[in-house]
Amino acid sequence: MEKNTDIVFNFSAGPAALPKPVMQQAQQELLDWQGLGTSVMEISHRSKEFVAVAEQSERDLRDLLNIPDNYKVLFCQGGARAQFAAVPLNLLGDAQTATYIDAGYWAQSAVEEAKKYCEPDVFDAKTSIDGKVAVLPASQWKIHPDAAYVHFCPNETIDGIEINDLPVTDKPIVADMSSTILSREIDVSQYGVIYAGAQKNIGPSGIAIAIVRDDLLGLAKQVLPSILDYKTLAEQDSMFNTPPTFAWYLSGLVFKWLKAQGGVKAIEQINREKAALLYDYIDQSDFYINNIHPQNRSLMNVPFQMVKPELDALFLKQADAVGLKSLKGHRVAGGMRASIYNAMPLEGVQALVDFMRTFEQENA
Amino acid sequence: MEKNTDIVFNFSAGPAALPKPVMQQAQQELLDWQGLGTSVMEISHRSKEFVAVAEQSERDLRDLLNIPDNYKVLFCQGGARAQFAAVPLNLLGDAQTATYIDAGYWAQSAVEEAKKYCEPDVFDAKTSIDGKVAVLPASQWKIHPDAAYVHFCPNETIDGIEINDLPVTDKPIVADMSSTILSREIDVSQYGVIYAGAQKNIGPSGIAIAIVRDDLLGLAKQVLPSILDYKTLAEQDSMFNTPPTFAWYLSGLVFKWLKAQGGVKAIEQINREKAALLYDYIDQSDFYINNIHPQNRSLMNVPFQMVKPELDALFLKQADAVGLKSLKGHRVAGGMRASIYNAMPLEGVQALVDFMRTFEQENA
Repeated sequence: MEKNTDIVFNFSAGPAALPKPVMQQAQQELLDWQGLGTSVMEISHRSKEFVAVAEQSERDLRDLLNIPDNYKVLFCQGGARAQFAAVPLNLLGDAQTATYIDAGYWAQSAVEEAKKYCEPDVFDAKTSIDGKVAVLPASQWKIHPDAAYVHFCPNETIDGIEINDLPVTDKPIVADMSSTILSREIDVSQYGVIYAGAQKNIGPSGIAIAIVRDDLLGLAKQVLPSILDYKTLAEQDSMFNTPPTFAWYLSGLVFKWLKAQGGVKAIEQINREKAALLYDYIDQSDFYINNIHPQNRSLMNVPFQMVKPELDALFLKQADAVGLKSLKGHRVAGGMRASIYNAMPLEGVQALVDFMRTFEQENA
Repeated sequence: MEKNTDIVFNFSAGPAALPKPVMQQAQQELLDWQGLGTSVMEISHRSKEFVAVAEQSERDLRDLLNIPDNYKVLFCQGGARAQFAAVPLNLLGDAQTATYIDAGYWAQSAVEEAKKYCEPDVFDAKTSIDGKVAVLPASQWKIHPDAAYVHFCPNETIDGIEINDLPVTDKPIVADMSSTILSREIDVSQYGVIYAGAQKNIGPSGIAIAIVRDDLLGLAKQVLPSILDYKTLAEQDSMFNTPPTFAWYLSGLVFKWLKAQGGVKAIEQINREKAALLYDYIDQSDFYINNIHPQNRSLMNVPFQMVKPELDALFLKQADAVGLKSLKGHRVAGGMRASIYNAMPLEGVQALVDFMRTFEQENA
């Protein structure tokens, strides 16, 4: 297999590939943005030029997700990990508990942080169907009567699990959408808080988004750092402290790119095609394995193993040599993982499947 | 005055101008970094390529500031505002108070956040000498006997004040060096914690640095969000959560650039020349005013007013037209402010003085 340096498909789980046209525009205007003679990252966040970027990016995100007016859109720092703390600190109020639905690594990580602030009520939603990993239907999730909110993670990046239904509750639903936001249509009005680290479908690492229903602002009873206070951030238009301006600008370019692709509905179609291509190939093969039940397979993160795991290193080396990058599974999971976020074109997944077929023929 | 689009000098207080060669390199390798076929912001923070960036940037910063081995260097998110919370949360231990030296806007902002976690003991160090704003010598600062630490801000970005001495105490000294770090030589071993938002002398906004003496790790008695926990960040090499990789990479390039300039000692010389040029011009003029006593004038941020403040708008408009950008004073201070961080060349300050002279001749 020969190296082809012209075409690289980057399957990184995050920080992930960004759309090529976005990166090209960023490069072109990096030294002289809007004719100012400086970079967008070298101007005040309070300048009219940057405030326009901030406002436009929020409008575009609102359009893309059809965010109702009674939700605030906050641009935050500290990634989803900061939100693991921000959610209980902002939402517990007088409550002593919140229900956390556990279906994988990230849901569990949110629980660990929540333990600092309350006694989380953890519902283990993991199950198996026909020997495959699956998640119990939401109708079977038990929610604590005193829970301040119900937290879940609809897409487990490491495990490759996706949850397609919603907790059945009148309590605020909080979702860590780091690796699913903007990949498929959602009904924001069903949620209390949606948060997401940017480094998958939004932009570069270093920025995170929280979409907060406005009746949940100002509930905080515990002392919390101002930079995590939803009310403070909302009142200051996410400029309580100097925001990560370049990451915000790039996220704005990604939103514009996504609108140009036809928005979330259109990208969901492509995402479903991409995922089907890869899962279908794995399922017809006796050489590759994905152990997640089809009802809970992630649209964005496709982990797979080989029946001969001793070939993992060779697979990754040869894949890299033909420009199929960052296919190594997460350190806690092993094997391989193809993250196929919005910026991954169908041709990238096709190239991966072609490679997998050749590799299977050579090594089965 | 004619517009000259070829030369722009950007006096922004932050996010501030970055060194031109750094921006040029970033642009050149934005789409294909180290031959990987992707941007540095599109790869895993745990990849060997990015870990090498992280490690090298730390080594370079250690070289530049001569940081002793018993200090941890943490790359954080949330800017100095996050550190306003992190400092008391990490350092109070069993203490109920800490002494905060107040000499301006940012010191006061740190106090406001500290009030959430303790009863800060505030020492007002502002004074006046010959009708000019000044700061009491550190030998006169009163430090609470039960203080867990002494906090001060050596450079007040908005007020244009610099403090050149250190608290006289055996308690840990904590310094917000956001706008003074790397501008002049310091003796790190005198401090317990030094922290700084990056967006002045380090890199773009969205990253902050904390330099923490290792005996101060793990003192936290209060519950604190993990992303603010110095011990957690130190144990995880600042990768507890996905770090802002592009901002970190750019900061590393700035450190390399600064080393190539001869390091902090060499840049301090240039910074003193730049500041002297501007202050000397202001002092000999009857048209421009800087109301800070020479002993406390900031090396980095030079606020000035005109005897005819009604001319401010005209000044700013004409300055902008000749490529002298972002000279407007902070919204809470008014007037003008020239921030002359490391990336500002001497020619930029010369161009500003030349403009000021012409403007004075035309409008006095």
